[in-house]
Amino acid sequence: MNAVDLIRHKRDGRELSPREIRWLIEKYTDGFVTDYQMAAMTMAIFFSGLNPDELAVWTDAMLHSGEVLDLGEIVGAKIDKHSTGGVGDKVSIPLVSMVAAAGVRVPMISGRGLGHTGGTLDKLEAIPGFTTTLDPKSFVAQLEEIGLVLAGQSESLVPADRKLYALRDASGTVESRPLIASSVMSKKLAEDLDGLVLDVKVGRGAFMRDIDQARALARTMVDLGAAHKVPVVALLTCMDQPLGREVGNASEISESLQVLRGEGPDDLTEITLSLGSEMLLLGAIATDHQQAREILQRTIDDGSALEKFAEAIEAQGGDPRVEDPELLPQPAGRIDIPAPRGGFVTVCDAFTIGIAAMRLGAGRERKEDPIDPSVGVTVHAKVGDTVTTGQPLATVAWTDEARLEAATEILERAWRIEDQLVPPNPIVLEEIR
Amino acid sequence: MNAVDLIRHKRDGRELSPREIRWLIEKYTDGFVTDYQMAAMTMAIFFSGLNPDELAVWTDAMLHSGEVLDLGEIVGAKIDKHSTGGVGDKVSIPLVSMVAAAGVRVPMISGRGLGHTGGTLDKLEAIPGFTTTLDPKSFVAQLEEIGLVLAGQSESLVPADRKLYALRDASGTVESRPLIASSVMSKKLAEDLDGLVLDVKVGRGAFMRDIDQARALARTMVDLGAAHKVPVVALLTCMDQPLGREVGNASEISESLQVLRGEGPDDLTEITLSLGSEMLLLGAIATDHQQAREILQRTIDDGSALEKFAEAIEAQGGDPRVEDPELLPQPAGRIDIPAPRGGFVTVCDAFTIGIAAMRLGAGRERKEDPIDPSVGVTVHAKVGDTVTTGQPLATVAWTDEARLEAATEILERAWRIEDQLVPPNPIVLEEIR
Repeated sequence: MNAVDLIRHKRDGRELSPREIRWLIEKYTDGFVTDYQMAAMTMAIFFSGLNPDELAVWTDAMLHSGEVLDLGEIVGAKIDKHSTGGVGDKVSIPLVSMVAAAGVRVPMISGRGLGHTGGTLDKLEAIPGFTTTLDPKSFVAQLEEIGLVLAGQSESLVPADRKLYALRDASGTVESRPLIASSVMSKKLAEDLDGLVLDVKVGRGAFMRDIDQARALARTMVDLGAAHKVPVVALLTCMDQPLGREVGNASEISESLQVLRGEGPDDLTEITLSLGSEMLLLGAIATDHQQAREILQRTIDDGSALEKFAEAIEAQGGDPRVEDPELLPQPAGRIDIPAPRGGFVTVCDAFTIGIAAMRLGAGRERKEDPIDPSVGVTVHAKVGDTVTTGQPLATVAWTDEARLEAATEILERAWRIEDQLVPPNPIVLEEIR
Repeated sequence: MNAVDLIRHKRDGRELSPREIRWLIEKYTDGFVTDYQMAAMTMAIFFSGLNPDELAVWTDAMLHSGEVLDLGEIVGAKIDKHSTGGVGDKVSIPLVSMVAAAGVRVPMISGRGLGHTGGTLDKLEAIPGFTTTLDPKSFVAQLEEIGLVLAGQSESLVPADRKLYALRDASGTVESRPLIASSVMSKKLAEDLDGLVLDVKVGRGAFMRDIDQARALARTMVDLGAAHKVPVVALLTCMDQPLGREVGNASEISESLQVLRGEGPDDLTEITLSLGSEMLLLGAIATDHQQAREILQRTIDDGSALEKFAEAIEAQGGDPRVEDPELLPQPAGRIDIPAPRGGFVTVCDAFTIGIAAMRLGAGRERKEDPIDPSVGVTVHAKVGDTVTTGQPLATVAWTDEARLEAATEILERAWRIEDQLVPPNPIVLEEIR
């Protein structure tokens, strides 16, 4: 077998055999197949695609490129959630706290922010002392004990994806449906899950602006789960404007706590309950959505979700007095962005706000950039709201004046204010199972 | 400017600007743009193509990636010929000898054989002492003095192509029309030519089996020449069966000498005269094909073409007594391949014969393989010939018994003998200018 023949086959639209795919992934992981050959292959896949059979094998080969978690000894259903990334998307934090408090085991492996999107790991690391680096043994032990782990991907899990993702990022093949699907699903399947809920974002602040594309990606990932005998449910959710009001790191932890206290913004609470009830259904904790929502509401009302989050923080070395807002990193100052005119907010652009937050230091332009956990944007005016001239559209938390200037210049372009009311899109658009 | 953006633009079908293309080729040549990025780019080009404007700039950027010959001081028209590669294709050797004898300056830069095809450099090196490595100064001096140089590409000419061709070979993007065209034309345009004749092979033993593909490639290269103000004429020629009777290295030198003595096989003589008369027309030595053919015939009749070849051999360190067949390397033995039945030869497959010759040691499987100049195949029965059972279809010249066995096994599959006469295709199929 040789890489050039496989590249040419895929380029010419021929199906790769399971043996060929497994050889390719194995030999790429160990370095025999070169980066330039894999770059040509991924570009050929961008154009020629992978059919469902090829994709299932490709994903399986990726997931077996390294260690695979074995959670078989742990009693109870292990359910995780994955989001394709958005702005102000702190959903994971209240979600897994509520779901774990309700009795589902959540072995959550998250990622970092890049570009205009934030990452759960960066948000969690705003909590003083919190570590997201866990070896597999501690990971399993914490899941056993508390029922909730919030970690980064360890070096030993799915090394093929680590290598391949960096290559795709540097050679222009990130935007390929089968490659996105296999990257997400190989990592999730390596967690030894009993079920997975996908939050596939659509809109101005999502990687997919088009609902057909998002639907196709969701369908691909749901089918990949089925091929691996793991039930997967995907919700397509609206990412036209930031979720909730906070876009940042420390500020998103605070807003997550609001949700856990039952004081969160409506859109954020609603998406959390929607995703959470799917997780409860997959975990057989509830038998219908109504019951699932009641169970989740109870974890808020009785404080058990907040308690569960505090347990996880403590187990991972963080300061559990996180409800004290003074504990989180503070910015040097805050300034308001005033509305240039009065009227109805018709656009509150998640992408633009995400880029502004990145420029402030809340996100990364390049993977190696540091994060400033204290800075961010608090959104006061969202689609459907009325504003008067001069009323603050947002408040910017900053630490560096040059960055503040760059960010406010961008931020001013994020809103459109018009005379006619435009109602916002619903937060959950579709469900694919 | 950054490579990932350019790759994504091309991938998404957008046109690259001249500035972007020049940046890419320059930065790839100096190593700033990586091999994996260029591999992704060439695969994107395989699918998205390059439009004529992009291709002209791409070719120009390649040709200026290193030194460019300056033949401005040399009086007379400088005309070269390029073949896309075939089996038994020794045309260059008699062709340039005749054309140079007729007064055209021929600064010929040739390549080596790979796979089933032979290379002019390998054939010339069968002549004891002959060197194909000339520095640019000696190259220009010999062209000035003799009017004919037969050299390999120097390291300093078109380094971008050397790098890019090796990458494409190792990453499955050889078969891309714009990339083939720019590779050929950048090297030829770097020779500072006044005109170029292309021999674009079509058929069983050619890289292009399909005449539409060959026509499109020829048209692309002719247009590229026009964009660089160099007149280019392309002949599409038949490569279903080997040209002439000899497939090897020393044996092809002997057959070339036969042509120069007026004793060559018809197909080989015909293609040489056809390509040669185009070169004379481009060089303004003749005003029509009839006159051009007469001039070329005279260089054979008066021995001047043979003399010109001997001059070039001597200038490049070779033994000019090349007409003495004993001077050339000799094989260990020869065996015949008998016809398994009588009838008309309907197929004499150039590809299969080329592969058999390669296995004998006359060609290379990998670029680094050595060549045995003494071995090869002499074809006795070509399409349209009648044979009786047991009559030799070919004679194999060999030096290694294991290689002989492998080669004869392949070779036996090269002929089809049937009861109905099938006339061979004409040798020159079409002309594109």
